[in-house]
Amino acid sequence: MAVRVGVLGATGAVGQRLIQLLEPHPAFEIAALTASESSAGKTYGQAAKWRVDSPIPEEIAEMTVTATDPDEVPDDVDLLFSSLPSSVGSAVEPAFCEDGYVVSSNSSNSRMADDVPLVIPEVNAEHLDLLEVQRDERGWDGALVKNPNCSTITFVPTLAALAEFGLERVHVATLQAVSGAGYDGVTSMEIIDNAIPYIGSEEDKLETESRKLLGEFDGASLTHDEVEVAASCNRIPTIDGHLENVWVETEDDLSVDDAADAMRAYPSLDLRSSPEQLIHVFDEPDRPQPRMDRTLGDGMAIAAGGLRESTFGLQYNCLAHNTIRGAAGASVLNGELLLENGYL
Amino acid sequence: MAVRVGVLGATGAVGQRLIQLLEPHPAFEIAALTASESSAGKTYGQAAKWRVDSPIPEEIAEMTVTATDPDEVPDDVDLLFSSLPSSVGSAVEPAFCEDGYVVSSNSSNSRMADDVPLVIPEVNAEHLDLLEVQRDERGWDGALVKNPNCSTITFVPTLAALAEFGLERVHVATLQAVSGAGYDGVTSMEIIDNAIPYIGSEEDKLETESRKLLGEFDGASLTHDEVEVAASCNRIPTIDGHLENVWVETEDDLSVDDAADAMRAYPSLDLRSSPEQLIHVFDEPDRPQPRMDRTLGDGMAIAAGGLRESTFGLQYNCLAHNTIRGAAGASVLNGELLLENGYL
Amino acid sequence: MAVRVGVLGATGAVGQRLIQLLEPHPAFEIAALTASESSAGKTYGQAAKWRVDSPIPEEIAEMTVTATDPDEVPDDVDLLFSSLPSSVGSAVEPAFCEDGYVVSSNSSNSRMADDVPLVIPEVNAEHLDLLEVQRDERGWDGALVKNPNCSTITFVPTLAALAEFGLERVHVATLQAVSGAGYDGVTSMEIIDNAIPYIGSEEDKLETESRKLLGEFDGASLTHDEVEVAASCNRIPTIDGHLENVWVETEDDLSVDDAADAMRAYPSLDLRSSPEQLIHVFDEPDRPQPRMDRTLGDGMAIAAGGLRESTFGLQYNCLAHNTIRGAAGASVLNGELLLENGYL
Amino acid sequence: MAVRVGVLGATGAVGQRLIQLLEPHPAFEIAALTASESSAGKTYGQAAKWRVDSPIPEEIAEMTVTATDPDEVPDDVDLLFSSLPSSVGSAVEPAFCEDGYVVSSNSSNSRMADDVPLVIPEVNAEHLDLLEVQRDERGWDGALVKNPNCSTITFVPTLAALAEFGLERVHVATLQAVSGAGYDGVTSMEIIDNAIPYIGSEEDKLETESRKLLGEFDGASLTHDEVEVAASCNRIPTIDGHLENVWVETEDDLSVDDAADAMRAYPSLDLRSSPEQLIHVFDEPDRPQPRMDRTLGDGMAIAAGGLRESTFGLQYNCLAHNTIRGAAGASVLNGELLLENGYL
Repeated sequence: MAVRVGVLGATGAVGQRLIQLLEPHPAFEIAALTASESSAGKTYGQAAKWRVDSPIPEEIAEMTVTATDPDEVPDDVDLLFSSLPSSVGSAVEPAFCEDGYVVSSNSSNSRMADDVPLVIPEVNAEHLDLLEVQRDERGWDGALVKNPNCSTITFVPTLAALAEFGLERVHVATLQAVSGAGYDGVTSMEIIDNAIPYIGSEEDKLETESRKLLGEFDGASLTHDEVEVAASCNRIPTIDGHLENVWVETEDDLSVDDAADAMRAYPSLDLRSSPEQLIHVFDEPDRPQPRMDRTLGDGMAIAAGGLRESTFGLQYNCLAHNTIRGAAGASVLNGELLLENGYL
Repeated sequence: MAVRVGVLGATGAVGQRLIQLLEPHPAFEIAALTASESSAGKTYGQAAKWRVDSPIPEEIAEMTVTATDPDEVPDDVDLLFSSLPSSVGSAVEPAFCEDGYVVSSNSSNSRMADDVPLVIPEVNAEHLDLLEVQRDERGWDGALVKNPNCSTITFVPTLAALAEFGLERVHVATLQAVSGAGYDGVTSMEIIDNAIPYIGSEEDKLETESRKLLGEFDGASLTHDEVEVAASCNRIPTIDGHLENVWVETEDDLSVDDAADAMRAYPSLDLRSSPEQLIHVFDEPDRPQPRMDRTLGDGMAIAAGGLRESTFGLQYNCLAHNTIRGAAGASVLNGELLLENGYL
Repeated sequence: MAVRVGVLGATGAVGQRLIQLLEPHPAFEIAALTASESSAGKTYGQAAKWRVDSPIPEEIAEMTVTATDPDEVPDDVDLLFSSLPSSVGSAVEPAFCEDGYVVSSNSSNSRMADDVPLVIPEVNAEHLDLLEVQRDERGWDGALVKNPNCSTITFVPTLAALAEFGLERVHVATLQAVSGAGYDGVTSMEIIDNAIPYIGSEEDKLETESRKLLGEFDGASLTHDEVEVAASCNRIPTIDGHLENVWVETEDDLSVDDAADAMRAYPSLDLRSSPEQLIHVFDEPDRPQPRMDRTLGDGMAIAAGGLRESTFGLQYNCLAHNTIRGAAGASVLNGELLLENGYL
Repeated sequence: MAVRVGVLGATGAVGQRLIQLLEPHPAFEIAALTASESSAGKTYGQAAKWRVDSPIPEEIAEMTVTATDPDEVPDDVDLLFSSLPSSVGSAVEPAFCEDGYVVSSNSSNSRMADDVPLVIPEVNAEHLDLLEVQRDERGWDGALVKNPNCSTITFVPTLAALAEFGLERVHVATLQAVSGAGYDGVTSMEIIDNAIPYIGSEEDKLETESRKLLGEFDGASLTHDEVEVAASCNRIPTIDGHLENVWVETEDDLSVDDAADAMRAYPSLDLRSSPEQLIHVFDEPDRPQPRMDRTLGDGMAIAAGGLRESTFGLQYNCLAHNTIRGAAGASVLNGELLLENGYL
């Protein structure tokens, strides 16, 4: 029997992707859609300007949107996927958790809180048990789990695959797609024939979230990893798919072949949305490329390529679909992990 | 009286920019245009598919194109600007030099040769005197001077401005415009809604040319600088303007303010094509941007911005117009330097 | 002595272009800048996110922005250039006119009003005298003159050039640049790798404004031309420059050569912003193109090309820079015409 | 049992799409791949630079490419899909037909020949029997059937749906994607921030192929329809999906509702590649759009929208995926029709 789920912030870019992924999902059944007050009471078809690349499912179009308020969401809904603006998320997500809902959230608020697991299932599924600490401390029946920022998700799996060599220093430059800023985030006048070498607070997310994700959880508390990360973020005129240039310096010697082997061997999980091969390593030096490779593994794989010896350590490129693996798909995957681990 | 000049490889992208810059130039008079055998004998208007953003000058359109052969270029031409494919350049540039022509070349061949000055006038004008060594060794009446690769020119002036702090390690990621590959270099199917994290042998150019440019010439030989540079190069869907993300680690402490001051104070030259302000430092964190800032100083300035403390040293972005400051304008500037220093 | 002028709606896309054109203009001196209440009191540098391709003039950046209200604009300002949203324009432009200001407006409100001259100086300068009727009827000391919509301006001069052949039926399909919708008008997610075959009420503007522009003014009233026009409008991923495909059926025979001759012979004016050659006719079948040809005549020329016999009558393409010739430049040109004709 | 098929010109853009569509096709089995002499002898993986958005099928990558020569193709191959350059196609397609192969061709050569059926199965399947005439006249055991040009396929189904109202005059302006020109057909410098109002001989194809497609076959000869068509063709910066603006004047009155009904009611076929709904009519005025709607019906549907009363008759927009419905999918569909009608 499918778990009844809701989508908080259902009309936005990530909200639409969430619906696209959840609607055919055998384990989940969409039973609630929330948005801002101005959309409450409308059908979803009226409230959302649907822009995903598959038609809007009819029964979803006819559902009534409610306000993003625990009182408006049916009690038999167990799991909520949240893609709220972080200012809204920080206000209402705790209220939902207090009311007993389990929330798998893509919003950036609280990602770095000590008792909130920040999870990429294939990388640090064991951090999920931080929820026990969270429930103890906060007295919640519900729970709050976060996935990282889209640009963080893109490169952390490759770092995790190389962790055995002793990660020391990482430089990462990102070439990020416009969809990462939401439908209205980047105007056409800003980005056609242009690039913008700045995305507000994005660099900090790569630098800090990566250390939390690679950290160790001892059952009681989480110690962040000591790898030092420096990030530089750019927006470019691509629709979907974040491309990243990475340099890694490691304690142990790390050859190109060892790195490729480690990435290819890095295990995926049995969760429904996990791709068969988590990291796909290209031998062609000019891959991965956003338009060509963003849909690998239905948008849930990480693509890597261009592995080469750098002046300092190893150098490579990686890519992930920012609104699937990097956002909506990440939250769905965390939902599957919550289900598998008995949190629902 | 204007120096009579010629353009080798006049029909290509850089060749057209050279003509656009040289035609109104008071010190130079275009007296020869060469191209491949298939264009020889045609008028320039017939031979070239003119694609620069100003109309083709009428008297240029009517000039007859000759083969790229010393015998075909009038003897009273003193200075040749070369934008030949490097395979052609390596074959014919020495022949022109032997014949007594002074060649200011943008082609990549011979840039790293011990007796060939690689020059950005504002950075290392004194290297020009390596021509004495060159003439001695090669027995040439003419001379061969090179400008660096477009992506090298973009960041080296900023490094030169920071050299006083003791450059140690540099990481640079580039976001390069399609014009850098020539008119037919990047197809639309390759780059619309896409980015390509690979440009053949480009990374090596940034890593090695930068050390030569920052090196010391003692009157007899050139010692390359010891700064270590790691580069990662990307092509993105912009027409003109290479944007670069740079991390610099220095021996001495280097604050954001010190770096901005050093860049702003870095002197320009009195040469006609040198901009009044060589490095323009933006305070806005989201600048420079290719479409907005590539024409600063008529395309000859370097734009910098986003200076911030990094996890490792200093971090910033820089930008230059790749076919003006990075190619045609660079060769013209070297021509002006040759003239000023009595090599013509 | 320069006429003191103001810009209403100075922070928007057309407002910025107006400043770019007016600041170096010898006949005009910018003495007032207005914007919405939220900008009033700020310096222009603070209020405007400057995005034009030349640096913001320093003295303009330091001017204080006022609300768009006749009481806030100095009395010694004679001429106002308006690029207000039409809803604002329809409310406040009449108030300025009543207060004695002459307003050259790009806003779409009142363009079709019987007593408001809609003017492209090279096409129908004589319509300006409709201002006498306007002043009589409205009791204004000031005056209101309009320029047409950017997509209308692009093709009407070519129709005017062919009018002697007896215009009967016109079909026009437009490929319009994103800047026509203002800075925030088209998001990047809407237009990258895409086209939008709809621009709200744009088709009606082409169909009706063209008839008014080509109409006859007998000193008392204006009769619209009887040419029938059908328009289809598309937004495409270009920054500037509206390209249009036109089919014209005429009463008299109209050969390709006759049409080209008529366009080339169509006179420009002596006004400062009028280009030397109004309509530039290309012989190359693949021109004009937006990026290549939009800056002809400093953005004030009309480019035409691809003239050929159609299944029905004559077929050709035309192009104009939509924010210069099609908007800000059009208003400035009307300002010059007002000055020349003694309305200031 | 699957019919053994071959792909002529297998390494090009349409060739790759053909392989992508044929490889999973239950009725066809790929048994031969041909390309130019320079590719012969290589594996397909070596010969083709695979750029389609799904990974290259492994067994296809390992097949050996042969020259495009009847002697090189196995005799047990019955059906050939051809996407050769038209100059090559006109030379070798007849040789294959003479040798007994049935050829379903996307190449433009011979499309207008009197005895060559030009077929869109849902529009004029009955024209296929022109093959009897062809075999009689040419003495072929094989047969040659053509699909129209991609821009023709986009609008002809909508005309066919309106034919009952008596088509008289049609104007069509196209906004075509770069993939229609093949991988190297349009350079990035030509099209970024640009549009090109010219595609060589494309307009003629829309004007003449449409009349042949809508013509009547009486069992002996084909009479072209008398509708008059005027076309204007533009290339824009989209990857896939041709968008077209259409004006239709009809003998009988044609309301927007009647037109929408007729399009929606226009029947599809039971062929495997035919979409369930052939023409999808949008009510939203701003649809169809290339990136949003090109994959309707797996890229085999026609999208229409923006139906409105025009100054002259009816006006609307339509869209189809140019390399699927407009090229590779069109040829596959004709292959299915040939199979169903017993020509294999």
